Amino acid sequence: MSKQELGITVKKDENVSEWYTQVVKKAGLADYAPVKGCMIIEPYGMKIWERIKKKFNKMIEDEVDNAYFPLLIPESYLEKEKDIVEGFDPEVAWVENAGKDGKLEERLAIRPTSESIIADYMSKNIRSYRDLPFRINQWANIMRWEATDTRPFLRTREFLWQEGHTAHKSEENATEEVLKRLGQYAELFEDIMAIPVLKGKKPEHDKFPGATVTTTVECLMPDGKSIQAGTSHNLGTNFAEAFEIEYEDENQKKNKCHTTSWGISTRSIGALILAHGDDKGLVMPPNIAPIEVVVVPILVGDNKEKVLEFSEKVKEELSSFRVKVDKNRDKSPGYKFNKWELKGVPLRIEVGPNEVEDKELTTVRRDNGEKQVLEFDGISDKVEEILEDVQYELYKKLEKSREENTRTAETLDEILDNIDTYGGYVKTAWCGEEECEAKVKDEVHAEIVLLPFDKDVRSSDVGSECAICGEKSEEVVYFAKTY
Amino acid sequence: MSKQELGITVKKDENVSEWYTQVVKKAGLADYAPVKGCMIIEPYGMKIWERIKKKFNKMIEDEVDNAYFPLLIPESYLEKEKDIVEGFDPEVAWVENAGKDGKLEERLAIRPTSESIIADYMSKNIRSYRDLPFRINQWANIMRWEATDTRPFLRTREFLWQEGHTAHKSEENATEEVLKRLGQYAELFEDIMAIPVLKGKKPEHDKFPGATVTTTVECLMPDGKSIQAGTSHNLGTNFAEAFEIEYEDENQKKNKCHTTSWGISTRSIGALILAHGDDKGLVMPPNIAPIEVVVVPILVGDNKEKVLEFSEKVKEELSSFRVKVDKNRDKSPGYKFNKWELKGVPLRIEVGPNEVEDKELTTVRRDNGEKQVLEFDGISDKVEEILEDVQYELYKKLEKSREENTRTAETLDEILDNIDTYGGYVKTAWCGEEECEAKVKDEVHAEIVLLPFDKDVRSSDVGSECAICGEKSEEVVYFAKTY
Repeated sequence: MSKQELGITVKKDENVSEWYTQVVKKAGLADYAPVKGCMIIEPYGMKIWERIKKKFNKMIEDEVDNAYFPLLIPESYLEKEKDIVEGFDPEVAWVENAGKDGKLEERLAIRPTSESIIADYMSKNIRSYRDLPFRINQWANIMRWEATDTRPFLRTREFLWQEGHTAHKSEENATEEVLKRLGQYAELFEDIMAIPVLKGKKPEHDKFPGATVTTTVECLMPDGKSIQAGTSHNLGTNFAEAFEIEYEDENQKKNKCHTTSWGISTRSIGALILAHGDDKGLVMPPNIAPIEVVVVPILVGDNKEKVLEFSEKVKEELSSFRVKVDKNRDKSPGYKFNKWELKGVPLRIEVGPNEVEDKELTTVRRDNGEKQVLEFDGISDKVEEILEDVQYELYKKLEKSREENTRTAETLDEILDNIDTYGGYVKTAWCGEEECEAKVKDEVHAEIVLLPFDKDVRSSDVGSECAICGEKSEEVVYFAKTY
Repeated sequence: MSKQELGITVKKDENVSEWYTQVVKKAGLADYAPVKGCMIIEPYGMKIWERIKKKFNKMIEDEVDNAYFPLLIPESYLEKEKDIVEGFDPEVAWVENAGKDGKLEERLAIRPTSESIIADYMSKNIRSYRDLPFRINQWANIMRWEATDTRPFLRTREFLWQEGHTAHKSEENATEEVLKRLGQYAELFEDIMAIPVLKGKKPEHDKFPGATVTTTVECLMPDGKSIQAGTSHNLGTNFAEAFEIEYEDENQKKNKCHTTSWGISTRSIGALILAHGDDKGLVMPPNIAPIEVVVVPILVGDNKEKVLEFSEKVKEELSSFRVKVDKNRDKSPGYKFNKWELKGVPLRIEVGPNEVEDKELTTVRRDNGEKQVLEFDGISDKVEEILEDVQYELYKKLEKSREENTRTAETLDEILDNIDTYGGYVKTAWCGEEECEAKVKDEVHAEIVLLPFDKDVRSSDVGSECAICGEKSEEVVYFAKTY
């Protein structure tokens, strides 16, 4: 890659779409695949996904087992739950011919989601209340043949995700589970990826097919659009009825289970890019960064070996962090600075002959460019402090931006005007009717992204009548354009 | 699961096929999927696969990057390399209809292997000799629509695997790579899974489609059949020519790259089950076991709380091992003994009121049933010693068995007779002609599993004429029935 190729040639706030495309490709996150709408996840993107996996597995591993379910689902299984088939049929890729014999007896769906096949597994493996709660998760590839425009990570026909599926004795237990996993998603986004989220539920007409309640974590991107970052669904007894998932209670009475499902996908990498990136490329929060610290030896004059030696010593001293020493002799320090800025490494440490002599290090923060000269002694503690501050500041910046970009509206005109002029979230009262939302959608392509759980938000002053039709309203909702 | 359901009802050496089916299901490794030939990998099976992943990633991570390539490959890509299309066409599952628009312009293969799509990626990303060696790996699901009988792990239409793909400057570098990865597979099987392997190459007519050389690690199962446990292929310049994978050398001259590919799959779990299992179920070598030590508290009389407390203390003391305390109060100790024997946990520790009083522990080895009473003090060192011995003994047992079941033959009759009477490996001289192999295949369904690398083997006394046709032979080969 030449120095030219490293540079992002558009400004993020002038053309976010082109900026995004360049960052994805130039930072080595993903590339287009020969099949339209699919992507190749390149090594640096994969490292981020592997860290997300590791962090989320850690959160759930005490309670949830990982398994692997088949890619192909018979059409008759999808048809057992009517909402699933209606919801996903338009997006399914079908296998009708396979192997030497060709034509199959029944066509097979490449999984658009696995409720039906896992519900069947649950029905075979749950007998008694002692088997509950029953929890299983898989990390897998998913295929949804989107008709709309696709973009790497944000909307692709094939993506990677985690789907958790659980069964419980009661409605109450299922609700608890749904909220627990939603809380873990919020933790993953806020504490690990430094992206503040709103937690809430989707309107009735926008629930997951087959769900009684769909909850969501939403994050506002700097360009004023919202990303649905993870969802957790209460499936009630819908799948239990369709697939006979039953348990015998303490009195030998048979009951239907209450099931849930919940997922996050490689879309979260799209959110990460958009949330923090700047005109130079990616900005990675330390907790998710594949590399937290890059050491760049400045190889000039006669002291090259000493500089390299000292660089390795720095790495050793920082062994509790993910550190890379960029020893490439073909590239200039300037090239390396650009490269690792593009890749968003939170902290750069420069080691030159002067640094070796003075036992000092020059550090540069990726997020705000702050440069410091630090003593080598005690460098590990100092780096820890800096990285913690980076993580904190990245979060705070987005939180502040969300605050500034959340506006209230009491009339349809105010909603439209706010979305049109500023973007961001518009908080308003809503009667619950889909047609009222449609009036906003038709005009400015914004939709209700969630009904927030937060009590302060709900009791806040947005009036008690639907901003659109004037009917009495019990719901506070957030409108926004979405990815 | 009742105690009845835990028991394996057939002996391994009386009906290995039925034994295998029972172990897979009863130990919670895998279940059948609604689509014939596919499987559900259940949590215990998945834990084993995750350990294999972790161990192998560790071996390659310094040199090889993980990525993710698309599931769907356009037919025109498969067709670019003629051997690939001939080799895999009869096993491909095709997507011809997808989404709202239905019929696709070109049919798409669910990947039977990813050479073609990764070769395309290489051709776009390799420019100069500085980009070489180029190494990339993915962990992914694969679909091969087998016509023959399928069995969980050993032969399934969908399986999970790792496929590494590399590009090099020269034939020599590619050969080095092929052998390095084969060596790592051998290490994985021998040191981690305690299964001795033979390393060698496949006959010309049995190479991977598109390869110039296919190397293999083969392991002999106790029932006398061989399993191809991993393969590593030199692809020469075949894919480089089909996909124009070129690099500019130091003199600005364009050259074709030499590429390789190498893979191991969930089949390795099948080998693990067959290699070590006994009439009570699985026997897991400690290095691969999801649980190395199970602590079973004997909850009788008044001291239940003290027994549980002491059990937890044992777990703490053994914190460097993967330990589970089975605290379930609904099940008897006898039930638990059976359960963890079925799952092959290498060491059981029993903690009852007597043990608490005497600060002693009763240990029972899964592999040979050896029972010991050990002092609590210093238990960690003692357990380490025992587990090392288990790992060693499991390996030695198979090595001895392979030695005893490797016979030489100098005539066709001797080959057939040995295979028919004993199974195992038959070592013989072979001229190189497929039709000579066919004579053995037709009679006893045994084939040439490899041409061993080992020099001692090759110079050993099997004559210098093909045992089948009598022509001059330079090759020593191993015949065996295969999985």
